[in-house]
Amino acid sequence: MLTTQQLRDAQTQARQYLERAGIVLTPEESMNIEVADFGLGELETTGLELVVYVNTHRVCAKELVLFPRQTCPEHRHPPIGDEPGKEETFRCRWGTVYLYVEGEPTVNPAARVPKGREHAYTVWHEIVLRPGQQYTIPPNTLHWFQADDGGAIVSEFSTRSRDEFDIFTDPQIRRSTVVE
Amino acid sequence: MLTTQQLRDAQTQARQYLERAGIVLTPEESMNIEVADFGLGELETTGLELVVYVNTHRVCAKELVLFPRQTCPEHRHPPIGDEPGKEETFRCRWGTVYLYVEGEPTVNPAARVPKGREHAYTVWHEIVLRPGQQYTIPPNTLHWFQADDGGAIVSEFSTRSRDEFDIFTDPQIRRSTVVE
Repeated sequence: MLTTQQLRDAQTQARQYLERAGIVLTPEESMNIEVADFGLGELETTGLELVVYVNTHRVCAKELVLFPRQTCPEHRHPPIGDEPGKEETFRCRWGTVYLYVEGEPTVNPAARVPKGREHAYTVWHEIVLRPGQQYTIPPNTLHWFQADDGGAIVSEFSTRSRDEFDIFTDPQIRRSTVVE
Repeated sequence: MLTTQQLRDAQTQARQYLERAGIVLTPEESMNIEVADFGLGELETTGLELVVYVNTHRVCAKELVLFPRQTCPEHRHPPIGDEPGKEETFRCRWGTVYLYVEGEPTVNPAARVPKGREHAYTVWHEIVLRPGQQYTIPPNTLHWFQADDGGAIVSEFSTRSRDEFDIFTDPQIRRSTVVE
């Protein structure tokens, strides 16, 4: 759960990040930046700020803002009906992001798991993305990501986004944000 | 046909546009900016500079650079096999772009058709895109676009890109660029 004040503060901060990176939003987009706390109420460590540009049956594009050390928690996008799961390409636009996917665990990874949530982070193959660098995550692959101490902006290019089908490793997580 | 010098000059200019807009490329992307003259050899009026970020079987994302009054000529993306045609969302990042699609023709449109090519421009429903503004073009819909006097940068979010299937109104057009 987020308070109205927390929501507004996160939106203001996200607007500043996007502006600094030269990413222009319409006034409407700017007023409606989505703030996701994943139901944990620990936005500073587990959270994400999003601008969804387009989400049709076939294509989705978003900007993702991560504040310093903010983490998008581990999840995967399963197949739905006849469709394979969501395929995502993350392209770093500003800052540095540590992305973790299935594969050989990285020795001395750079991210720090949010305290008390260690059980919910199981994949440790690290990919470091700096501006201009990108990585494509195949459908149904566990992944999570965190900004470094300076925050980050990531463009996401993907197939249709249906957050309600995402499967998070942490059973406490709820994808819909509730504002009190 | 493009000369090597024309190709290099267009790449240099496109790099300057992208840099000015704060869009960061990897050194490899920067060296390999695609320059399309659509086989007409009139790059100044009919042409496009592209950086393809990703193009999988499901999703494609690109940056498009248009120099002042440069035009991407009229075409459509037809269905291929079981797939509907390519669906494209154009989001203006920098500058101003005039986009034309099927529909009620606009009185006094802002674009100027490349001289001698008037026969190849048949749709005149105008959409003006300024930074932050975007438009989604349904599959198999005729469209073309031109930057205003200051040039433009447009992000394209789409389904899979298969340029070789595009159908151009101008029968002289060849999508593959030949460099002599």
